[in-house]
Amino acid sequence: MSKPINLHEYEQQAMTLLEGPTCDYYAGGCEDEVTLRANLQSFEQVRLRPRFLVDVREVSTATILLGKPLDSPILVAPSAYHGLAHAEGECETARGVAQAGSLFTVSTLATRSLEEVAAAAECPLWFQLYVYRDRSVSERLIARAEAAGYQALMLTIDRPWLGRRERELRSGFGVPSHLSMANFRDVPAAQNYRRAGPNALPDPKADMFDAGLTWESIAWLRSVTSLPIIIKGILTAEDAVLAAQAGAAAVVVSNHGGRQIDGTVTTLEALPEVATALADSACEIYIDGGIRRGSDALKALALGAQAIMLGRPVLWGLAVAGSAGVADVLTIMQRELQRSMALCGRPNLASIDRSLVRPSGMLF
Amino acid sequence: MSKPINLHEYEQQAMTLLEGPTCDYYAGGCEDEVTLRANLQSFEQVRLRPRFLVDVREVSTATILLGKPLDSPILVAPSAYHGLAHAEGECETARGVAQAGSLFTVSTLATRSLEEVAAAAECPLWFQLYVYRDRSVSERLIARAEAAGYQALMLTIDRPWLGRRERELRSGFGVPSHLSMANFRDVPAAQNYRRAGPNALPDPKADMFDAGLTWESIAWLRSVTSLPIIIKGILTAEDAVLAAQAGAAAVVVSNHGGRQIDGTVTTLEALPEVATALADSACEIYIDGGIRRGSDALKALALGAQAIMLGRPVLWGLAVAGSAGVADVLTIMQRELQRSMALCGRPNLASIDRSLVRPSGMLF
Amino acid sequence: MSKPINLHEYEQQAMTLLEGPTCDYYAGGCEDEVTLRANLQSFEQVRLRPRFLVDVREVSTATILLGKPLDSPILVAPSAYHGLAHAEGECETARGVAQAGSLFTVSTLATRSLEEVAAAAECPLWFQLYVYRDRSVSERLIARAEAAGYQALMLTIDRPWLGRRERELRSGFGVPSHLSMANFRDVPAAQNYRRAGPNALPDPKADMFDAGLTWESIAWLRSVTSLPIIIKGILTAEDAVLAAQAGAAAVVVSNHGGRQIDGTVTTLEALPEVATALADSACEIYIDGGIRRGSDALKALALGAQAIMLGRPVLWGLAVAGSAGVADVLTIMQRELQRSMALCGRPNLASIDRSLVRPSGMLF
Amino acid sequence: MSKPINLHEYEQQAMTLLEGPTCDYYAGGCEDEVTLRANLQSFEQVRLRPRFLVDVREVSTATILLGKPLDSPILVAPSAYHGLAHAEGECETARGVAQAGSLFTVSTLATRSLEEVAAAAECPLWFQLYVYRDRSVSERLIARAEAAGYQALMLTIDRPWLGRRERELRSGFGVPSHLSMANFRDVPAAQNYRRAGPNALPDPKADMFDAGLTWESIAWLRSVTSLPIIIKGILTAEDAVLAAQAGAAAVVVSNHGGRQIDGTVTTLEALPEVATALADSACEIYIDGGIRRGSDALKALALGAQAIMLGRPVLWGLAVAGSAGVADVLTIMQRELQRSMALCGRPNLASIDRSLVRPSGMLF
Ligand SMILES: Cc1cc2nc3c(=O)[nH]c(=O)nc-3n(C[C@H](O)[C@H](O)[C@H](O)COP(=O)(O)O)c2cc1C
Ligand SMILES: Cc1cc2nc3c(=O)[nH]c(=O)nc-3n(C[C@H](O)[C@H](O)[C@H](O)COP(=O)(O)O)c2cc1C
Ligand SMILES: Cc1cc2nc3c(=O)[nH]c(=O)nc-3n(C[C@H](O)[C@H](O)[C@H](O)COP(=O)(O)O)c2cc1C
Ligand SMILES: Cc1cc2nc3c(=O)[nH]c(=O)nc-3n(C[C@H](O)[C@H](O)[C@H](O)COP(=O)(O)O)c2cc1C
Repeated sequence: MSKPINLHEYEQQAMTLLEGPTCDYYAGGCEDEVTLRANLQSFEQVRLRPRFLVDVREVSTATILLGKPLDSPILVAPSAYHGLAHAEGECETARGVAQAGSLFTVSTLATRSLEEVAAAAECPLWFQLYVYRDRSVSERLIARAEAAGYQALMLTIDRPWLGRRERELRSGFGVPSHLSMANFRDVPAAQNYRRAGPNALPDPKADMFDAGLTWESIAWLRSVTSLPIIIKGILTAEDAVLAAQAGAAAVVVSNHGGRQIDGTVTTLEALPEVATALADSACEIYIDGGIRRGSDALKALALGAQAIMLGRPVLWGLAVAGSAGVADVLTIMQRELQRSMALCGRPNLASIDRSLVRPSGMLF
Repeated sequence: MSKPINLHEYEQQAMTLLEGPTCDYYAGGCEDEVTLRANLQSFEQVRLRPRFLVDVREVSTATILLGKPLDSPILVAPSAYHGLAHAEGECETARGVAQAGSLFTVSTLATRSLEEVAAAAECPLWFQLYVYRDRSVSERLIARAEAAGYQALMLTIDRPWLGRRERELRSGFGVPSHLSMANFRDVPAAQNYRRAGPNALPDPKADMFDAGLTWESIAWLRSVTSLPIIIKGILTAEDAVLAAQAGAAAVVVSNHGGRQIDGTVTTLEALPEVATALADSACEIYIDGGIRRGSDALKALALGAQAIMLGRPVLWGLAVAGSAGVADVLTIMQRELQRSMALCGRPNLASIDRSLVRPSGMLF
Repeated sequence: MSKPINLHEYEQQAMTLLEGPTCDYYAGGCEDEVTLRANLQSFEQVRLRPRFLVDVREVSTATILLGKPLDSPILVAPSAYHGLAHAEGECETARGVAQAGSLFTVSTLATRSLEEVAAAAECPLWFQLYVYRDRSVSERLIARAEAAGYQALMLTIDRPWLGRRERELRSGFGVPSHLSMANFRDVPAAQNYRRAGPNALPDPKADMFDAGLTWESIAWLRSVTSLPIIIKGILTAEDAVLAAQAGAAAVVVSNHGGRQIDGTVTTLEALPEVATALADSACEIYIDGGIRRGSDALKALALGAQAIMLGRPVLWGLAVAGSAGVADVLTIMQRELQRSMALCGRPNLASIDRSLVRPSGMLF
Repeated sequence: MSKPINLHEYEQQAMTLLEGPTCDYYAGGCEDEVTLRANLQSFEQVRLRPRFLVDVREVSTATILLGKPLDSPILVAPSAYHGLAHAEGECETARGVAQAGSLFTVSTLATRSLEEVAAAAECPLWFQLYVYRDRSVSERLIARAEAAGYQALMLTIDRPWLGRRERELRSGFGVPSHLSMANFRDVPAAQNYRRAGPNALPDPKADMFDAGLTWESIAWLRSVTSLPIIIKGILTAEDAVLAAQAGAAAVVVSNHGGRQIDGTVTTLEALPEVATALADSACEIYIDGGIRRGSDALKALALGAQAIMLGRPVLWGLAVAGSAGVADVLTIMQRELQRSMALCGRPNLASIDRSLVRPSGMLF
């Protein structure tokens, strides 16, 4: 197999390398996978309006997110169980992210502890949080993340119940026994989470995460951490406003990669209303879902996003070539974004605005 | 064959188990089946706008329809000849419906008499009415339904003539001789209805049902029964208003599953105008047609329906596993609806409104 | 082969029975055949809004066109060279049309003379006119048509040049030598028209019909005939108004079945603007192009057409079973239209109006 | 292989005749080739509104571009390396263009020097310019073009960086060693441009053309030439206005055949806004991208273009039959345009306006 030249080829190669149930776990969306497909299709419904005769000898993707400078707005979205793709799990991912100069959001459901990942990582880290039913468990986790140098907490809000992913059900996916819920080594009950078997999809009533979180819970979160809080899973103007009011430093427009609720808006469909709602706010906007090309990223930036997060593609890179694959996936996207900016006459992120895009189709 | 995990898999299994002409009778729509397909496609043209950080530890689908409490708004639409799918016919269906805690609308064209079904049923029952040319026949039927404990009459209005279903014509479908029109045992002429043969599709002039019904006929119906009247087959605001004026307790937005007129509006397309027309009325709104997922049901509820009726899926369940299959089909839908509500931040039906949906596509 | 039950099946059977080049001549459109396909697709973009509880024991498709009563608005569009499909050519077609109680528009390019057709026909006849370069030839033809009892002249205006039909070019279609331009037996030069060979598509400069017709030519036509004039090939409001002003008794909204210019509006797309333009005029509106179902016809009636013309389907009927096939094709359409009317609560043509249709798709 | 009857058939034959990597170089677009496909699809989204009963015995496509009369507005867009398709390269192309009475835009990246092409050409020539980093190189080139009789300079602005064409990357396309950058024989460094190998796609930092051009560069260009300047690559109203202000005699609405940035507007989508922006300007508007039929050209003319440029089709003609193929491709398009004009009642270019087109789909 020759070296993949784009993210689609990374996907193809990863799917031949991974075990069947892991493929299903990675690739699948919930129910009929309408949203999974629609996330990608939305990008074809937006057209770039490039401008020319702009000096693009130097094109910089540099940005500042939550006050910290970054070379590129292409970041890594949180995903669970990297141990499925590589023996070193999230530690290996972290090495690749560092190599590419990007930022890594580590999932609560990592197969390496947050401290192990931090030790391996020479890149900025954010910690993604699912809130445990027993809040003291989460409070300990947050304290550990702060201690380990994580720079922000990303609270995922679109998983009060687990989505019904039927590919996983069909192939009987479960987390293999050699992989542990590394962040919960002190919580024996958590170790059986999502093991294969009849209870492969957890009973919502008995799920280990709290389906009772409300906007008031953000106040609790702010009381137990001084880290900036990013709220992941915003799909409406209404929730965007509530997030800003609750003091979120940023929101992620996300539908969890089509894995939670089938039939929702795609993230690109949701972005304009979120951007309008937060236009006068200091709250930053990130987006994930179906972004596979630099031009996709550019469209999202034009519609109001400040950063782009990659979910599955990072796992494909990890499966194909470990940290080198992760770095390559990120670098490909950074270069595609940079090239698309150059070719649209936008030498830096500040020069990108909504006039760069329009809906597809004849307008006359 | 492993246990189906969703309604599509029930369909596939049913189609392998049933005889060819029965498959054609169940699955087919009229003429080019544009409406049959479009019913399903419409749901992809509506997107959910989920809200988060709402307490969804408890999610209730409980509702009150025609004044009676029900655990879920997922109901069973009337369909003819359950004897084609199971030896016990509608009695077996009734057992499954009871097991799932749902409500069963029994067709005039049942292969078990309404009394037999009522005896087998531990669930609420409605009786679907096609009006016989000789009104006294229908009056007897209504009196029997009242006596047997049926709680409402559902008058189907979209079948003044029978639709032209070409799959049936091609495979020569006819009701087999061992199945009787059980509700018409006292009407010998009715026994030959839809038997196989050259007259497989009845001549409209000689059809046993009355093509001359008008809105005035509702007055007759109200004069012969005290049961609430549900009018099934509404596709326009105009007819919705007439139904409410005629004293209907509810309407069903239905195109008969694409079996009567090809090229009509889909039921989801018709729902908003019906909901607007009846906004200030006490008349309830139900819908059927192409609903195969909890998220479909949720979209219909958001656009103004108070209940969702399943047609074909119930027959698939009956064919695959008798009452257990019926119960499973209904339970799958109830759970999918509940899960979709949880994931959209709507812990009960009252919290569902039009802000939960928008058309698909970029809006900017 | 079993008896076709709809027009699609007639098409399939005809295509297996006819010779290859004839299939290409019948089925083909010009260039990329975008319009050929789009004509049919347009009908899927319009939805019926049926009304119910209307007395439809009697449903009449009776109409009056150009002052003459007809049982049905389903008519036969003009098409050339019926001798390709049946040895008796247009005479055989005429017998089928009469059997179905319809009306036959005979083409200038018939393979039987207009007098032979009139002798065979017990149905009303219209004569379709292409104007010969030498006007005296056309004047003789018109006089003969009047003498033979034709009731109207239909001037086809969308063929100033012949469209480029590439299927015909590829298969080398030409009118076989045993078939004559029967209406031009007195015009030797006309006999070689569209014979096979290198000049299969006539050079526009040397074509036998007049590319120089203008709206003033209608005055000439009116001066040489007292028959009502129907103008065929209207696709814009502008030309509709000019036709009415020129004294046309009717227009046919037609794009020649996609055979003349690829990329034009479909006839259903053009119909609303033509109907609006002629709303206050006595000029009647007919339509052809891609009409294959009664529901298509009904949509066209709702959007303003008074009659529906079938082109290719009549040829399929002729090829499959001679006059019986023609009659069956027409009868199928008449019955489908009647059934669709019944099922939409429109017991007669007068009850059909624009409220019966809406565009497809969610409107909210 | 029989003689192609349309441009699609030229494409098919060319693809069987050319070497694999050349096919990829010719046919490919950048990245996912969304724009490559969309360029063609846009033409299906516009419908012609033909008018009839207009005298079309004579139909003239004659036009005046930049003050010079031409028989047809169908021109040849610049493309690189004709030596890949024919041993005589651009000289052979020029002979075909002359034969068809068209105009040839010679690329900076020709495999024959601009003087050699001018010597072979009996047609009007324009010279397409990519600006070399060392401006004196370009100044020499411009002076040579003037001296050789080129009538205009076309500055291509949509290639500040080279687009990422993945088909080329996969097949390892590079300019073969027997072909030279003929216009740069005096610039040894230029000779290695786009040779096959690891650096097949040039590093933007080390590219031989200047990524630092701005609108001010047009002033430089005007200072070194008296030829009219055409700016190629305009996709927005904003850039169109800037071009006119900078003194451009014409703009080409072009996305470089989908080879530079994937996801841009198609050229037909961009045309209306450019036409509106330049409505009061003397600046002419040309268009290229996906034009394969006379009806495509006609739609573009109706939406505001004054000339149509063909890119790939000319290369197909060259590959299939040398100058005769080039001439035939152009002649086919000229005739198709003429026929479409005749069939739409537009006997000359002046009679074409926006009323000739509308978007596809039902409008009611
Ligand atoms: C295999 C997998 C596991 C995931 N695990 C998590 C997780 O633990 N926490 C979380 O917030 N999101 C998780 N996500 C969602 C991603 O953060 C992200 O929203 C989504 O993958 C983006 O879409 P994309 O995969 O199309 O880029 C997961 C996604 C995948 C594919
Ligand atoms: C096999 C079959 C038989 C039916 N019989 C009846 C009937 O007797 N009375 C009636 O009102 N509707 C009847 N219907 C229509 C259903 O009540 C319902 O409107 C339709 O099936 C809903 O669409 P769905 O099948 O896509 O869920 C029948 C439908 C099917 C598929
Ligand atoms: C084989 C063939 C021959 C035709 N010949 C004529 C003709 O001689 N005169 C004419 O006005 N229209 C002619 N037409 C056009 C038809 O009158 C009619 O406009 C068209 O076929 C309608 O579309 P449909 O075939 O989709 O029903 C012809 C069409 C076909 C298919
Ligand atoms: C193989 C190839 C080489 C090209 N080389 C050039 C070039 O050297 N300069 C330029 O301005 N455009 C170049 N173009 C772009 C064409 O001028 C034109 O914009 C494009 O091909 C139009 O689209 P079409 O191929 O769909 O007709 C090239 C296009 C192709 C296909």
